Amino acid sequence: MPVHDFTSQRLFVPDDLAAGRELSLGKEQANYLLNVLRLAVGARSSCSMAAMARGFSELVQASRKGVVLRVDTQERPQEDGPDLVYLFAPLKRARLDFMVQKAVELGVSHLQPVITTHTQVDRVKTDRMRANVIEAAEQCGILRLPQVAEPVKLSAALAALEPQRVLVFCDERAAQAGAIEPLGAVAPGTPMAVLIGPEGGFSDRERTEIAAHPGAISVSLGPRIMRADTAAVAALTLVNATVGDWRPSAAT
Amino acid sequence: MPVHDFTSQRLFVPDDLAAGRELSLGKEQANYLLNVLRLAVGARSSCSMAAMARGFSELVQASRKGVVLRVDTQERPQEDGPDLVYLFAPLKRARLDFMVQKAVELGVSHLQPVITTHTQVDRVKTDRMRANVIEAAEQCGILRLPQVAEPVKLSAALAALEPQRVLVFCDERAAQAGAIEPLGAVAPGTPMAVLIGPEGGFSDRERTEIAAHPGAISVSLGPRIMRADTAAVAALTLVNATVGDWRPSAAT
Repeated sequence: MPVHDFTSQRLFVPDDLAAGRELSLGKEQANYLLNVLRLAVGARSSCSMAAMARGFSELVQASRKGVVLRVDTQERPQEDGPDLVYLFAPLKRARLDFMVQKAVELGVSHLQPVITTHTQVDRVKTDRMRANVIEAAEQCGILRLPQVAEPVKLSAALAALEPQRVLVFCDERAAQAGAIEPLGAVAPGTPMAVLIGPEGGFSDRERTEIAAHPGAISVSLGPRIMRADTAAVAALTLVNATVGDWRPSAAT
Repeated sequence: MPVHDFTSQRLFVPDDLAAGRELSLGKEQANYLLNVLRLAVGARSSCSMAAMARGFSELVQASRKGVVLRVDTQERPQEDGPDLVYLFAPLKRARLDFMVQKAVELGVSHLQPVITTHTQVDRVKTDRMRANVIEAAEQCGILRLPQVAEPVKLSAALAALEPQRVLVFCDERAAQAGAIEPLGAVAPGTPMAVLIGPEGGFSDRERTEIAAHPGAISVSLGPRIMRADTAAVAALTLVNATVGDWRPSAAT
C-alpha cells in the first residue's frame, strides 16, 4: 500500500495525535483524501496535527460526508521551540501574510498584533493570520503552531509581558548599540519578545514608553531604512542566533 | 517656494548629480512634476539620482514633452555600502520581487542569479529585477543601486568570485556550526558573498562543489526549514551584523 504524505493545509486538524486515536475529518478533507489523493479504506498516510506531532494513520472509514483516520504510530513527537513573542504593528494584506509566514519559519511562539499611533490598518484579520500560520507550518514541516492573539494597544501589550521576558526594541536611533552586542548579554534560553513598529515608526511618546519598559534592550539594525517585514526577519534572526535555538549547542 | 520631496521611482534618473548639472527628464516624469506635484519653473525640489547622491535642484524648463532640472546643492553624497555579493537561485515572480527588494534594504552590492540543478525558473527577468531594485532603493532612501547580473550556472558563479571573498553557504546539514560563530572569525570589512539555493535545496554534487570552494564557510540557520527568501534575509542579516555595517564601530 503506498504511503502518501498529505501534510497539506486541509489536513492540519486541531486534534491529538496519540496512537490509537481516531480522527474525524470533514467534507472538504474527505474529498481531498478520497478524490484527489484517491485513498481507500486501509490506506496508510502520514499526517500532521495542529501543534502536536506528525504520525502515520490508517483510513478506517470513508463516506462523502467525512473520513475517519486511526493514528497508529507517531513519527515525530511534539516539538518545543523558542519562547519568543512577536509583537508587531499589523501591516496591509500581502505584507502581513508574508510577515506571519516568516514569523512561523523563525520559530515564534506567540503573534501579538499591537496597535500604535502610526498603525495604518483598521481591522486586523486574525482568522486570516491563523490560516497563514497553518499554511506556513505545513509548508516548512513545523509541528508547533504559534498562537495568534487579538490586537491590543501598545501600553497593554507591554504591561502583559512577564517580568523575566527580555524585549528587543529595534531602535532606529540606537546606531551605536550594534545588532549582536546587546543580545550577547542575555542568557541563552531566556524568554524573549521582539517588537516591530509600523512603517511610519513609533511616535516619540511610544519610544519613551518602550525604552522605559524594565526588560527592554535596544538593538540597531544598521544604517539603512528597512521595511517593517524585513526588520522583523532580521530581528528574529538575531534573537535565534544569539539566545535561541540557532546556537550550536542548542542544535545538538 | 515650497520644497517638494519627490523621491519616487519615476524620478530616479541614471544621471550625475554634480552641482550645476542640468538633467532632462522625459514625458512621464514631466507629467508627474507638472501635473501631479504642480510644480512650475523656479520650484526647488529634492531628488535622488541613480546610485549617486541626493540633492536639491531647480526646475528650469518645463513643457509637455519634458522638464529640465538644474542641480544646485548636494544634500547627501554618494554612499558606500557593504561589498556584499548575493548569489541566489531565482524564485518565482512575487517571491523574487520580495527577495530583490529585501536584498537592496540589506545593502547588497551585487545581485547574481545562479542556475542550479533544482532551480524551477526558466527565464530570469533581469529587467524586472532592476525595476524592483530602483523601487526598493527609492522606498528606503538608499542611494547606491546594487548591480543586477545576468544569470550564470553555479560553477561559473563560484569561479568568478575573487580569491579574497568569503562565501557564506547556508548549509542545512551543518547544525553544529551555529549561525554567528563561523562569521566571528571573518575580519570586519572583508568582501563577502552569500549563496542561497532554490526551494528544493542543492544537489549532493553541488553541495560538495560549494564546500570545496576555497573561501566557503558553512553557516547554520537553525533547526527549522525556511523558505529561500526568509533564509536570504536571515543570512544577509548575520553578515551585516558580524562583518558588515551593522557593527557598532561601523555606524559611527
